[in-house]
Amino acid sequence: MMYSFEELKSIFLDYIREQKLTNEPVNLYNPVNYLMELKGKRIRPVACLLVANIFTEDIKKALPIAYSIEMFHNFTLMHDDIMDDADLRRAEPTVHIKYNINTAILSGDLMMIMSYKHILNCCTDLVLKDKLLKLFTDTAIEVCEGQQYDMDFENKKEVSLSDYLLMIKLKTAVLLAGTFKAGALIGGASDKDAAHFYNLGLNLGLAFQIQDDLLDTFGDQDIFGKKIGGDIIQNKKTYLYLKALELADSNQKAKLISLYNDNLMKKDDKIAEVKAIFKDLKIKDHAENLIEELMGNAFEHYHALSVPEEKLKEVKNLMNYLLKRNI
Amino acid sequence: MMYSFEELKSIFLDYIREQKLTNEPVNLYNPVNYLMELKGKRIRPVACLLVANIFTEDIKKALPIAYSIEMFHNFTLMHDDIMDDADLRRAEPTVHIKYNINTAILSGDLMMIMSYKHILNCCTDLVLKDKLLKLFTDTAIEVCEGQQYDMDFENKKEVSLSDYLLMIKLKTAVLLAGTFKAGALIGGASDKDAAHFYNLGLNLGLAFQIQDDLLDTFGDQDIFGKKIGGDIIQNKKTYLYLKALELADSNQKAKLISLYNDNLMKKDDKIAEVKAIFKDLKIKDHAENLIEELMGNAFEHYHALSVPEEKLKEVKNLMNYLLKRNI
Repeated sequence: MMYSFEELKSIFLDYIREQKLTNEPVNLYNPVNYLMELKGKRIRPVACLLVANIFTEDIKKALPIAYSIEMFHNFTLMHDDIMDDADLRRAEPTVHIKYNINTAILSGDLMMIMSYKHILNCCTDLVLKDKLLKLFTDTAIEVCEGQQYDMDFENKKEVSLSDYLLMIKLKTAVLLAGTFKAGALIGGASDKDAAHFYNLGLNLGLAFQIQDDLLDTFGDQDIFGKKIGGDIIQNKKTYLYLKALELADSNQKAKLISLYNDNLMKKDDKIAEVKAIFKDLKIKDHAENLIEELMGNAFEHYHALSVPEEKLKEVKNLMNYLLKRNI
Repeated sequence: MMYSFEELKSIFLDYIREQKLTNEPVNLYNPVNYLMELKGKRIRPVACLLVANIFTEDIKKALPIAYSIEMFHNFTLMHDDIMDDADLRRAEPTVHIKYNINTAILSGDLMMIMSYKHILNCCTDLVLKDKLLKLFTDTAIEVCEGQQYDMDFENKKEVSLSDYLLMIKLKTAVLLAGTFKAGALIGGASDKDAAHFYNLGLNLGLAFQIQDDLLDTFGDQDIFGKKIGGDIIQNKKTYLYLKALELADSNQKAKLISLYNDNLMKKDDKIAEVKAIFKDLKIKDHAENLIEELMGNAFEHYHALSVPEEKLKEVKNLMNYLLKRNI
């Protein structure tokens, strides 16, 4: 049978509860439980299960992989939150705030290692396991590279749009790509279908990230759920900003750079002035066009799958769900 | 042919140079090169090669495993040095001092992942690889547990001797045990011989750590290479201190605890007074007896190996080298 996203999420949440760690020392293991149990959308693990379910009815065998991916993702959150000096994660205190920095470093390390442990225990087919481990490892290395580029960009004067696209590919998109591919592989897909799922996830992940940039500036606060303009206040080199710099004439460019160097002006004024430049340059249209192009790529891979379309309903729903948020 | 420790070290150092990372972003990869290239004794990787060499002439195939272990060890150093607020490592600035904390977190994460990558690329025998990956993962988890216990003990009032022995087992000894076992496995040893090497390494690692405690207080500064008494000044709950608490009468116990709570008295006086209590309680003898017992265990496993004794010469040399340092 084919499960819905909600059904798979519920199966996955049960699995998380079963996996709760009671090992010692508790100061090492409790922060892992804390972060893993925070309410989240669980997009990645459920996407993994959902893709596996296209190729197999036995969804249980995909659970350790889904869990491993969620644990890896949470490991990156635990460490990124230290690096980004973030106090809140999913509206709750981050681990280094609730506990301390050393705990967040060490429990994060443990999560990284445990995500390998779950793959190592996922199946008896050693060829499949080797494939999954290599996929996981290559992806994890890329995620570290993406985080480093992201940190580098904060202090770098000249960041190009292609630098930025490489960064979000590594930091965000490859993990979604790897998730889709891992789900396909554990479900029993051919290497060809697994590769299509990788590229589907990659383009979807890029589109999602560009959309996130767009929503942060042009979104509806009630729907977006965050205060609008946060990226501008933080002088973040987003797609919008970098595209604007690319298209701006020398006056607009100077103005934009000076706004991004001004941390004293009233927040609302800063947001309004930056947005005005974005509007003059039709940055919203450019972003929407890019998102459309990326989703077009994603759907090319979707249509190239050797799978009957009716089995892909939930994947299509997920793709549309991730990109549906109104701006 | 059987290589000597020095020959294997030289082979390993060449391999490190070959593996030097030139990937981007450089801010992520340079700290890895920096730490991996610092002068060190390279005990673990060379021990791995040396044990592999007992079972195979083809030492090359053990290099990725030896390298993986050294990289894992350096990952733990990179993160432990943040947690311990250490400025120097092998007489050079630690990574978080030379670069910054975020870099030390992220490059450490990368090293952890890369140590898996090297195992994944080590061989085509998937059964062997699976065994090595599981050994590596279980060991890595234990090392995290050991580091957490070590941090916990700093703030814990009551630490027992058996707590302490568990901590050093996890923090230090299991990695040496895993190193010996991994070398045996990649060399082609039977599971039985591999298990003996594990236990040999475990006992050797424990003995080494107890000896380290002993040397820190009773060593000859010229031979030990560090200032004597550092553990006492830092109020470290070492074997010596915990054994003394166990054996002390109520007066000695009160005196020892009060000395360990006094951070204002003259360093030399504090060292002398603590040492006087240790001497009254014959702590040095107790430590030496324990080391002897542990080395006895190690040699039981050594003698149980199904390997002609002449092939074990270098292992015996290494065991004696690690424990030879005069006190």
